Amino acid sequence: MKKKPKRTELSELGEFKLIDVLTESIEHCNGSTIVGVGDDAAVIDAGDKRVVVSTDLLLEGIHFDLTYFPLKHLGYKAIVVNLSDIYAMNAVPQQVTVSLGLSKRFCLEDVEELYKGIYLACQRYGVDVVGGDTSTSVTGMTISITAIGLAHKDELCYRSGAKENDLICVTGNLGAAYMGLQLLEREKKVFLDNPDMKPKFKDNAYLLERFLKPEIPLAELKRMVALGIKPNAMIDISDGLSSEMLHICKHSNLGCRLYLDKIPIDDETLQMGEEMNIDPYVAALNGGEDYELLFTVPLGIHEQVSAIEGISVIGHMSKDSAGAMLITPEGSEIALTAQGWNAYRKE
Amino acid sequence: MKKKPKRTELSELGEFKLIDVLTESIEHCNGSTIVGVGDDAAVIDAGDKRVVVSTDLLLEGIHFDLTYFPLKHLGYKAIVVNLSDIYAMNAVPQQVTVSLGLSKRFCLEDVEELYKGIYLACQRYGVDVVGGDTSTSVTGMTISITAIGLAHKDELCYRSGAKENDLICVTGNLGAAYMGLQLLEREKKVFLDNPDMKPKFKDNAYLLERFLKPEIPLAELKRMVALGIKPNAMIDISDGLSSEMLHICKHSNLGCRLYLDKIPIDDETLQMGEEMNIDPYVAALNGGEDYELLFTVPLGIHEQVSAIEGISVIGHMSKDSAGAMLITPEGSEIALTAQGWNAYRKE
Repeated sequence: MKKKPKRTELSELGEFKLIDVLTESIEHCNGSTIVGVGDDAAVIDAGDKRVVVSTDLLLEGIHFDLTYFPLKHLGYKAIVVNLSDIYAMNAVPQQVTVSLGLSKRFCLEDVEELYKGIYLACQRYGVDVVGGDTSTSVTGMTISITAIGLAHKDELCYRSGAKENDLICVTGNLGAAYMGLQLLEREKKVFLDNPDMKPKFKDNAYLLERFLKPEIPLAELKRMVALGIKPNAMIDISDGLSSEMLHICKHSNLGCRLYLDKIPIDDETLQMGEEMNIDPYVAALNGGEDYELLFTVPLGIHEQVSAIEGISVIGHMSKDSAGAMLITPEGSEIALTAQGWNAYRKE
Repeated sequence: MKKKPKRTELSELGEFKLIDVLTESIEHCNGSTIVGVGDDAAVIDAGDKRVVVSTDLLLEGIHFDLTYFPLKHLGYKAIVVNLSDIYAMNAVPQQVTVSLGLSKRFCLEDVEELYKGIYLACQRYGVDVVGGDTSTSVTGMTISITAIGLAHKDELCYRSGAKENDLICVTGNLGAAYMGLQLLEREKKVFLDNPDMKPKFKDNAYLLERFLKPEIPLAELKRMVALGIKPNAMIDISDGLSSEMLHICKHSNLGCRLYLDKIPIDDETLQMGEEMNIDPYVAALNGGEDYELLFTVPLGIHEQVSAIEGISVIGHMSKDSAGAMLITPEGSEIALTAQGWNAYRKE
């Protein structure tokens, strides 16, 4: 009898574990590869400059729901999400390539609408669309974007650069995008139950915008540059604060202490959390899609960095042995866990 | 009454026309963009070097059929197809990013098999996997690959570089990959009708390999470099000789004369053409997926280039007004048309 081949379900592994398995045996053979898998973007030696490359695959029904995601917003967000990875390396994005897979459901006018958003984001961030690929698909829409950035080698910030006692900082506020998503999902259910109902979105434009049309915290980055501050480590918050914080800890071989009551949460997020019975701090820690920047700076510039508008100091790096801890207002310590988004999770 | 929004079906346009519509309004705003959409790859200024970027999206059911495409071969081919675009710019590929969308049908062992092919191709061509993204998908497998190459600016070859009277050359032979695909499709039908039938693949390993595991014509490129020959224009043959030749004509504002009897066709392709009643020259002109290189060189080096093993001179560039013509052995002229692969074509 033929032996049945081994079958390990991807849902048992989750995305991070799958990436680990697939990349553990990688040995770089090319002299121009400086950093491969494992940071926000890859880093390539191009003579006097460094080229930074990041890529994302967005699939309909997994990463976006066209029931409530306008195509123009989707195009805009798809670009911003990629640029965010480049900024998280402290590089400046220059170009993107855009590949699309489209089923027969979509017409030219749909694609043009999507591209309006793509071009709008590119214009806003000074980036060019330089290539891509379009193809029919069996079902749904597939968007694959690669962003290319440039930096001088001394400017780059890696996940691995955090030092013990570094301050942990974050731009803007967290949890709003997740709250926006929950709101859209709620109104979708209402609509599906009763198509005559109008969605209740009044007063929540900010939360919706945080989810549907995120922006890079450029103003905060500029304020830091103006003060001559360069982060030791940096990452963008796509999977939630917990998950990103653990990436910095792991890559820097350090622990951390995050103060729950220092995590910046917008008033609208707090209100909506109450209305929908969702803990806004859980949204901040595990919700993701905020596309704010999480970074560490030397303890010595505490006063300077605390004074920057739009930046919050939320904790500090500690010894590896101290673990990655969340400190509640009452002083109890909770170990940080990366819930993140397990795209392979069984529903 | 609400006016129905305009709806232009993508199948009316075809891929090239769709790309034209989407890119006609592009105005580059970034100073480091040298070439955007319109060549095999984009070209980016990175100081003393040029970075060359190309991307491809491969969708199950559209670009590949897993009934007969072994996952390891698929991984290998996905990489080679992208590197081919970089070589077509006369640049050297250095890195790739690989993004995967996978439905629950696939298990870890499947993904490992795919990656075996990916790593094998990378090793063979000295390229590193430096990033990517994995995600679940609603149906099927999606593969998105971006390849990054480097070149000195004087080394690059564009589609637009052909000169009047240039010789048109091609590496290897054409039409074999298309014949391999037809063979696989035939045996698939036989198998679906009668699952006990064994596929008849004997004696056709070469054709199958040309389709399932294409290679870059590195030996031919090296022989050219050794003789100090740099093409004026170059493109890789992914959509068929006609389509690629027309790209060179259009971008160089020239016409061409291709001699049908000079097109290199392998004996196995000729034989299989007879067996399956497929004109091997039609396979060469419109079949595609050969991943040979089509290029032009100055008329003056005719003797030199004709003597290179694995390179055939198949015609010459002419004035734009003379059109793009195929010359039959009897001397009649047929206008070249780009059948290519219209992925949006209604079946």
